[in-house]
Amino acid sequence: MNATDGTVRIDGRTTTDHRPVTIERGWSTQAEGSALISFGNTKVLCTASFTNGVPRWMAGKGAGWVTAEYSMLPRSTNERMQRESIKGKVGGRTHEISRLIGRSLRAVVDMKGLGENTLVLDCDVLQADGGTRTASITGAYVAMADAIEWGRERGFIGKKATPLTDSVQAISVGIVGGVPMLDLAYEEDSRADTDMNIVTTGSGTFIEVQGTAEHAPFDRDELNALLDLGLTGNASLAAVQRSALGLA
Amino acid sequence: MNATDGTVRIDGRTTTDHRPVTIERGWSTQAEGSALISFGNTKVLCTASFTNGVPRWMAGKGAGWVTAEYSMLPRSTNERMQRESIKGKVGGRTHEISRLIGRSLRAVVDMKGLGENTLVLDCDVLQADGGTRTASITGAYVAMADAIEWGRERGFIGKKATPLTDSVQAISVGIVGGVPMLDLAYEEDSRADTDMNIVTTGSGTFIEVQGTAEHAPFDRDELNALLDLGLTGNASLAAVQRSALGLA
Amino acid sequence: MNATDGTVRIDGRTTTDHRPVTIERGWSTQAEGSALISFGNTKVLCTASFTNGVPRWMAGKGAGWVTAEYSMLPRSTNERMQRESIKGKVGGRTHEISRLIGRSLRAVVDMKGLGENTLVLDCDVLQADGGTRTASITGAYVAMADAIEWGRERGFIGKKATPLTDSVQAISVGIVGGVPMLDLAYEEDSRADTDMNIVTTGSGTFIEVQGTAEHAPFDRDELNALLDLGLTGNASLAAVQRSALGLA
Amino acid sequence: MNATDGTVRIDGRTTTDHRPVTIERGWSTQAEGSALISFGNTKVLCTASFTNGVPRWMAGKGAGWVTAEYSMLPRSTNERMQRESIKGKVGGRTHEISRLIGRSLRAVVDMKGLGENTLVLDCDVLQADGGTRTASITGAYVAMADAIEWGRERGFIGKKATPLTDSVQAISVGIVGGVPMLDLAYEEDSRADTDMNIVTTGSGTFIEVQGTAEHAPFDRDELNALLDLGLTGNASLAAVQRSALGLA
Amino acid sequence: MNATDGTVRIDGRTTTDHRPVTIERGWSTQAEGSALISFGNTKVLCTASFTNGVPRWMAGKGAGWVTAEYSMLPRSTNERMQRESIKGKVGGRTHEISRLIGRSLRAVVDMKGLGENTLVLDCDVLQADGGTRTASITGAYVAMADAIEWGRERGFIGKKATPLTDSVQAISVGIVGGVPMLDLAYEEDSRADTDMNIVTTGSGTFIEVQGTAEHAPFDRDELNALLDLGLTGNASLAAVQRSALGLA
Amino acid sequence: MNATDGTVRIDGRTTTDHRPVTIERGWSTQAEGSALISFGNTKVLCTASFTNGVPRWMAGKGAGWVTAEYSMLPRSTNERMQRESIKGKVGGRTHEISRLIGRSLRAVVDMKGLGENTLVLDCDVLQADGGTRTASITGAYVAMADAIEWGRERGFIGKKATPLTDSVQAISVGIVGGVPMLDLAYEEDSRADTDMNIVTTGSGTFIEVQGTAEHAPFDRDELNALLDLGLTGNASLAAVQRSALGLA
Repeated sequence: MNATDGTVRIDGRTTTDHRPVTIERGWSTQAEGSALISFGNTKVLCTASFTNGVPRWMAGKGAGWVTAEYSMLPRSTNERMQRESIKGKVGGRTHEISRLIGRSLRAVVDMKGLGENTLVLDCDVLQADGGTRTASITGAYVAMADAIEWGRERGFIGKKATPLTDSVQAISVGIVGGVPMLDLAYEEDSRADTDMNIVTTGSGTFIEVQGTAEHAPFDRDELNALLDLGLTGNASLAAVQRSALGLA
Repeated sequence: MNATDGTVRIDGRTTTDHRPVTIERGWSTQAEGSALISFGNTKVLCTASFTNGVPRWMAGKGAGWVTAEYSMLPRSTNERMQRESIKGKVGGRTHEISRLIGRSLRAVVDMKGLGENTLVLDCDVLQADGGTRTASITGAYVAMADAIEWGRERGFIGKKATPLTDSVQAISVGIVGGVPMLDLAYEEDSRADTDMNIVTTGSGTFIEVQGTAEHAPFDRDELNALLDLGLTGNASLAAVQRSALGLA
Repeated sequence: MNATDGTVRIDGRTTTDHRPVTIERGWSTQAEGSALISFGNTKVLCTASFTNGVPRWMAGKGAGWVTAEYSMLPRSTNERMQRESIKGKVGGRTHEISRLIGRSLRAVVDMKGLGENTLVLDCDVLQADGGTRTASITGAYVAMADAIEWGRERGFIGKKATPLTDSVQAISVGIVGGVPMLDLAYEEDSRADTDMNIVTTGSGTFIEVQGTAEHAPFDRDELNALLDLGLTGNASLAAVQRSALGLA
Repeated sequence: MNATDGTVRIDGRTTTDHRPVTIERGWSTQAEGSALISFGNTKVLCTASFTNGVPRWMAGKGAGWVTAEYSMLPRSTNERMQRESIKGKVGGRTHEISRLIGRSLRAVVDMKGLGENTLVLDCDVLQADGGTRTASITGAYVAMADAIEWGRERGFIGKKATPLTDSVQAISVGIVGGVPMLDLAYEEDSRADTDMNIVTTGSGTFIEVQGTAEHAPFDRDELNALLDLGLTGNASLAAVQRSALGLA
Repeated sequence: MNATDGTVRIDGRTTTDHRPVTIERGWSTQAEGSALISFGNTKVLCTASFTNGVPRWMAGKGAGWVTAEYSMLPRSTNERMQRESIKGKVGGRTHEISRLIGRSLRAVVDMKGLGENTLVLDCDVLQADGGTRTASITGAYVAMADAIEWGRERGFIGKKATPLTDSVQAISVGIVGGVPMLDLAYEEDSRADTDMNIVTTGSGTFIEVQGTAEHAPFDRDELNALLDLGLTGNASLAAVQRSALGLA
Repeated sequence: MNATDGTVRIDGRTTTDHRPVTIERGWSTQAEGSALISFGNTKVLCTASFTNGVPRWMAGKGAGWVTAEYSMLPRSTNERMQRESIKGKVGGRTHEISRLIGRSLRAVVDMKGLGENTLVLDCDVLQADGGTRTASITGAYVAMADAIEWGRERGFIGKKATPLTDSVQAISVGIVGGVPMLDLAYEEDSRADTDMNIVTTGSGTFIEVQGTAEHAPFDRDELNALLDLGLTGNASLAAVQRSALGLA
């Protein structure tokens, strides 16, 4: 098993390619930070809302808070889904992904540096073709970086404070037909034996590793191959983020 | 009081101008019909989901059904709103607009011509600057027209059936500072004494007229001035729709 | 087409007659104001609850607030409906009517004159035979007027303040079998091509005009005929209100 | 302690008097059976909805079903209460009373005699001054009796079937200031040491006995005094029911 | 009919025997008071949570509050039930029992003696074989007694205060096959003509008496026989409580 | 950094020790399979409910289904939590853990071997001291194994079918104060820099790996150390399971 074994994927990629990733920074004119991110046909609108102040239970500690909400438009998918607002409750998958995005972003924020300010990241999937949670994390980072600068310009964050300790990016990897692959599209994801989401910092350490045997348990070698793929992919995404932010 | 009185509005329009309207037909690759419509900074993604068959309570009558759902992204507005899925219930305003969109579209659909098929129109506001309900109706018509053709191509609708009896478009009008104006942006809307939404067919008859005295009751002359403005504006929107659909 | 064309309706009325309207003022011994209003077989119990003070977000501005809630008893209709409390959510129609009643009443209240007091109008339909929303508005005005006097007597409203700037009344009109008619009963309403609710002040200006093409779009002449009918009908309702309040 | 000890109550009654009870049979023109019952200022509108057929899980057994729902209008009380439909859930007290009414009515219905038919009793409190649950049971019986006759006339119930095995009536009793009293009004109820609701058949046997020490535990003698009072009161209510039904 | 008539029950008991009752005091290491109580196969985990302070609406009166919540594990019963958290609402039976437990416990607590402290009693049924509400009350009393001592040791309750005015215990009685019996197991309960729950103080007065004719109304003699049985049974339970608390 | 470095933990364990684990198989007399599992002070009651048949959408495929629900008693924790049934919605954490348990168990079940039967695993946390999700998975496996045998004995599962392809067990690992440790108790978990849950099969392959940087990102070496610890711990748990099932 070799991650660069010549396998050609349905969309022509090699096993180590991610899909074309584009980030339209500042897509929204209302939010303090925003990014419309595409991983191939997957499109997520990420907005960052900056509020001076924190929830009452956190006040007076000199620290901020970051939270996230993920949602899919009803017809972002191939079959229309019922709206969670109509059902009257948020589903387990939505909850799980919202929590993952929030944890991932908080991992690169120094809450003392942020000061008593609150950031809410909304990741709304406009079109879904696999990898919506990884696109959400990767795009939300860009929106968050802009919102933090917005707060700094208005004096809500100290001039010398460095709330962002690193960047954060995420990608999916999986074993499909016995072959480890990077950034699964929906069709690949639904056939995967094992599926893993890897969240890292721009400096290459892990923030979150979530691997699930969808159809067959995996061994240590397979796990290592997936981790290798994910680290390489995330390094590439970090470069796209830097470019979008005008840092590269 | 004259609707063409030389008043210059905050964004440079005359009182009889609507904002620039653009329709990106087929924005979504998943839905049977779709349109991303903009009325200035207001942007609404309209998708049409076509399902062969109708709800059980309608089956066996040879007739179809059309329904609509409207929603705003939490940060489509200047201040972030709480998601209705998180609140666990759909608010009154959302309900009211969803019902208005559905009624307006049904008014131009011959349900027998549609046959036992169901159309669900989702209108998700990505960015809001006034007129989201009128943009939703105007864009949803385009998405619906494409979804009906999709159904015809696959044989779910008879070749000679004409489910669409007309087009439908909507615009807001209002009296701001004593002056009747077309297509109010958010800032104008919030200052309006009277606000009216006018839904018409392409042939110029009324489907829905909803006028509300927000701050001051209005008289018969004012009502007539608003109706005149609305009919002119909707005629212009009908032309934009025809152009988007390649009919003009 | 002529609104006084000799048509005899199912209950013997001419096209310009409303049904017999009665108002039992002070029906409830608990509320600060109340009215049991009947439009023929439609019966609505309207109560006005006066509270000194306003919600926290309004405090300190010297202004009051008026809001309304509409509901139908489960067996007010011919077929029993499920209770919204059992369903766990308020339906779109209920929301829409509650909002309409609230807006209509607020249009005749000077909030500064009301002072920091809150009025809640509850309109509970005990029996429904068409026109429940128009009966609710017409009856709620009477209950509200009494509750305002209650507040004045107790010193919550200034002696010289005039919170009520006018009266408000509402009636439905519609085109049934091609003929414009006033105050549709349920059986007529379900056959109407076009249905319109007209809310006016006692001095004859419009507060709300809501016309809907249920089955066929309507033209400008039809719209004008309906508006004429509605204005005449509301003038008659205003007289019934004045009589109930002992003002005529 | 003696139940006929000369105590004069706030409204002039002796301890063994119930308040004036009136039953307006057939108040609603829509329901298959209805009664507007008053116990003094307490007013409850009871409607009985008859449906041919039973829920799926009961079908095919030749037996019917009876259920009840209780609710209070928001301003039936001295202070306005929030609607349970707005809260999104039915409260514990409402549930408890609905269940009590349903059990009490089922106790006098022979489900085989009823056949595969469903009765829903709605008890909506229009005005509350204590004893709303006992008034509901007493009035619902009258509405139910009429609905059963309605079903018999239409052939849904056999001509010789006797679904009603007895009548049912209910009254509250309590110990106030050390004195056992019949049919507590709100003001008495709120001061009671012990409060008991007694549901009986017209032939004088018990269907339900619910006694609660609100402020002080009660002994066997007090319990017996309360039971005596309740039996006498219910015998009187049974006579009012017979009179309303034209049986006496 | 005689309560000691030689009838042998399905599990070998006489009609006046309750099932073996055990109380594991202090089962939980987290709660301020706890008891795992068994009535035969019925097992309920009762925990008492002591909080210094009261809800805002009660503050400043020098009095405390006691409340209770009852719930069944989904597979405590023979057939798995759906969780109420999944349904999104608490059922009527759960509400009713929670309220009964709370009232019963409050009847033996002097709220002034408790001071501004709150006790929440959770009664979670781990296994159900009839009598879950009576086991809950009997076990919750033991948990509550320990939580009160916990509060006293920490100085939240005055050294000389006597918040507990008595003990409280509960048992079910019923008429099965014409024979009055104590402490019905599930199989007996489902066949009972009449079912009664009796809550008493340790000194033998009544706190709550709830008798229901499940299948046949009952007369005064039957009621008296059931009350006799219940008083005897509760006296025995009071002894088990004293033993668990080391008082006997 | 060495996983066996002589560190002594707050409860006396070495870094490679898990807490004492006990499994009371068959704790419930109602469920088809059950286990009360303890990891130190963490106690979870796991029940398996076996139903012949599958949900309608799965019928006719010859395959079964396994699902799980996790919940905590309100006072299983040090501070009482509000019940999710009272809140009216299931929280994100509960959803996430229920989904993890279900996925983990399904990974060792051959759905064709199970046949058209449904297993519901309920994991109710009676007492929580860290590791409730890993205890749930480990205990639920034992309950599930017994329920499968129950189904086989009654002929719902073929005599030669082998629905269970392996065992499943789970344990938490984490880095606390820079030191990798096995099976974190609550106090350790709350101080951990990194927290990982590892689910494996009895044959030592991975089913799920979920690592989260709670306070500090982790590197590849740390990840490997945690994986080593988890594999060793799970091998020990597999032995406890075999012993409980009488297989060792």
